[in-house]
Amino acid sequence: MKKTISIIGSTGSIGLQALDVVRKFPGLFSVVGLAANRDWEGLRRQIAEFGPSEVGLSDEEAAGKLSGALDGKGPVIWSGGDCLSRIASIEQCDMVLIAVVGMAGLQPTLRALEAGRDVALATKEALVVGGDMVMREARGHRARILPVDSEHSAILQCLRKERKSAVKRLLITSSGGPFRTRSKSQMEDVTVNDALNHPTWKMGRKITVDSATLMNKGFEVLEAHHLFSIPLEKIEVVIHPESIIHSLVEFQDGSTIAQLSPPDMRLPIQYAMGYPERLPHYWSALDLASVGKMTFERPDFERFPCLSLAYRAGAEGGTMPCVMNAANEVAVARFLNGETSFSSIPRIVESVMDDHHPLREATFQDLCEADRWARKVSENLVLKHGVRK
Amino acid sequence: MKKTISIIGSTGSIGLQALDVVRKFPGLFSVVGLAANRDWEGLRRQIAEFGPSEVGLSDEEAAGKLSGALDGKGPVIWSGGDCLSRIASIEQCDMVLIAVVGMAGLQPTLRALEAGRDVALATKEALVVGGDMVMREARGHRARILPVDSEHSAILQCLRKERKSAVKRLLITSSGGPFRTRSKSQMEDVTVNDALNHPTWKMGRKITVDSATLMNKGFEVLEAHHLFSIPLEKIEVVIHPESIIHSLVEFQDGSTIAQLSPPDMRLPIQYAMGYPERLPHYWSALDLASVGKMTFERPDFERFPCLSLAYRAGAEGGTMPCVMNAANEVAVARFLNGETSFSSIPRIVESVMDDHHPLREATFQDLCEADRWARKVSENLVLKHGVRK
Repeated sequence: MKKTISIIGSTGSIGLQALDVVRKFPGLFSVVGLAANRDWEGLRRQIAEFGPSEVGLSDEEAAGKLSGALDGKGPVIWSGGDCLSRIASIEQCDMVLIAVVGMAGLQPTLRALEAGRDVALATKEALVVGGDMVMREARGHRARILPVDSEHSAILQCLRKERKSAVKRLLITSSGGPFRTRSKSQMEDVTVNDALNHPTWKMGRKITVDSATLMNKGFEVLEAHHLFSIPLEKIEVVIHPESIIHSLVEFQDGSTIAQLSPPDMRLPIQYAMGYPERLPHYWSALDLASVGKMTFERPDFERFPCLSLAYRAGAEGGTMPCVMNAANEVAVARFLNGETSFSSIPRIVESVMDDHHPLREATFQDLCEADRWARKVSENLVLKHGVRK
Repeated sequence: MKKTISIIGSTGSIGLQALDVVRKFPGLFSVVGLAANRDWEGLRRQIAEFGPSEVGLSDEEAAGKLSGALDGKGPVIWSGGDCLSRIASIEQCDMVLIAVVGMAGLQPTLRALEAGRDVALATKEALVVGGDMVMREARGHRARILPVDSEHSAILQCLRKERKSAVKRLLITSSGGPFRTRSKSQMEDVTVNDALNHPTWKMGRKITVDSATLMNKGFEVLEAHHLFSIPLEKIEVVIHPESIIHSLVEFQDGSTIAQLSPPDMRLPIQYAMGYPERLPHYWSALDLASVGKMTFERPDFERFPCLSLAYRAGAEGGTMPCVMNAANEVAVARFLNGETSFSSIPRIVESVMDDHHPLREATFQDLCEADRWARKVSENLVLKHGVRK
């Protein structure tokens, strides 16, 4: 029996790689739903190759063009803001891959879980912002969440069938980003190009900056906290510049289990899709002797304040991680536009968090509200301070 | 319900550490049988503390002294060559720890498995020499073998509930021993003290020399081959001088799982005894940032010919590993006595192996025969060549 799969964000980097897994294992997977934002031509090619029964495009105009091009043939086409959630809760689907950027991934994640689907989750915001809600839905509908992310995939692999009660610590590794060895004062001079020059992973611009501030690692701490139900104080970050060990789990008997591989997103994507089976790979495996050396350091919370901010947001909970995420998104966008400095990113985020009184037991509406509020306050802060050197 | 346990080799280093685990978890374990070679005073103290129902001493004289000292009180006392096997197959016992040195561990291992006991196995020779037979008994009686050895314990932990068919390679780590960086010609000048100076593990003299020649690693390759039913060509050795990663398993999806801890035998002992539970530890856990660096190299089969000899013995099978083991035991003993050189060890082993025509489907008797033959031939070789420089 083939595993039927829907992909939310099928024309993005993760979506394309997931479709490549389907292409490699045509006997194992069949695509029933595809959704994207506005790349209707990309989606049209995917429809021709994979034959989904339903597709969605958030952008109405793009959806119109696709509809015209298909001329009544092919799948049902949904459009508008709601269409990602429609494709995420499509009938007769075993697994939904959520791989859109930002808050837009939260609602389709919730819908897929409500429908009892397994969710392969690439969108960080779903757990960072809506962790409590997402995990409640997953538990309530006995749906599994399979992380599409090297660190959480590593932890899942290390935890495989181990007792949760025997876990002592999760150790999430970080390359340390491009500024691992910069002093605090050198950090003030960081340019956009510096920040986009990640040492080990090739990724989008926003997440590459988040990796440079270590905010991305902070997000991953919060995701791990929700995903594996492990208290924040049992989750640590360890700097590992070679990005070979993707994370580790320490057990109460003093044994630590680690997952290693060359840095390649195809492994966590395929692991989530094939779970619990391990499908054969078609990329290069690890050769430890060629790697030669792996190094480890403690993270520097002073030079990378975003990491502390993430722990703080997680501890305060409720709407606070949402506010942190929104402020960070604005600050990073403005940094990428040259409107503010690299070192302003944590300052803006912290300032917005200081002004926020988090709401516990937040609903989806509360989160949307907090998100809007934080974005507005952040924009004002950028305008007020401009480029701070 | 307490796990009842018998310890064969209770006065040795592994036996003492196992009893320490019992001491730490009095609610989990109860000792029903103890056996040793000749340390009757040590055994007497253990009887007083742990109250086993039966004990054994191979040495008849020592058994007599123990019997006199106990004066009819306490456990049933067995003595003579057969007593280890008796204690290994004692009634009402859940697990037997086999921790005697050398071939003497094979028969009690077979008896314990025949009786359907789980065996915690520390004696390397049982699998190196009698691997086929031991695994046949284990399968036939649905008895588990739990390795008491950092490398195989690591592999067991990495394989936990994974499908055997998904395994691509086992990677057994080795510190490389004290001569990792010596040139081949420098190897000719190795003294006994040099060879006993192991960089990361504190062990007995024989096994420390085996670690210096890498014969010990060769033994571990053969043990892993039997224990996990993995073909020899899928088992590799990787040199890792820091001895933090104790072994790794590479899966067909390109993911590698590793087990890490500070080098401490108490972990694999406790893991085997507590299996499948992970009991809390009372030794220091791993701090990766303090470790700082882990390095990896390919093994040099030319400078460490014993490693090749072990693969060869494993491939030829039958009585050949037995012959290799016996020749190595003689050569190492003679090296430790100053009667032959370090570099003669592989020469003697190879020469004896060259002279041997292995018997496939060997019985226990065949193995004893091959062992005797190899020892005699090895002794003659030592006499003939004396100290070769």
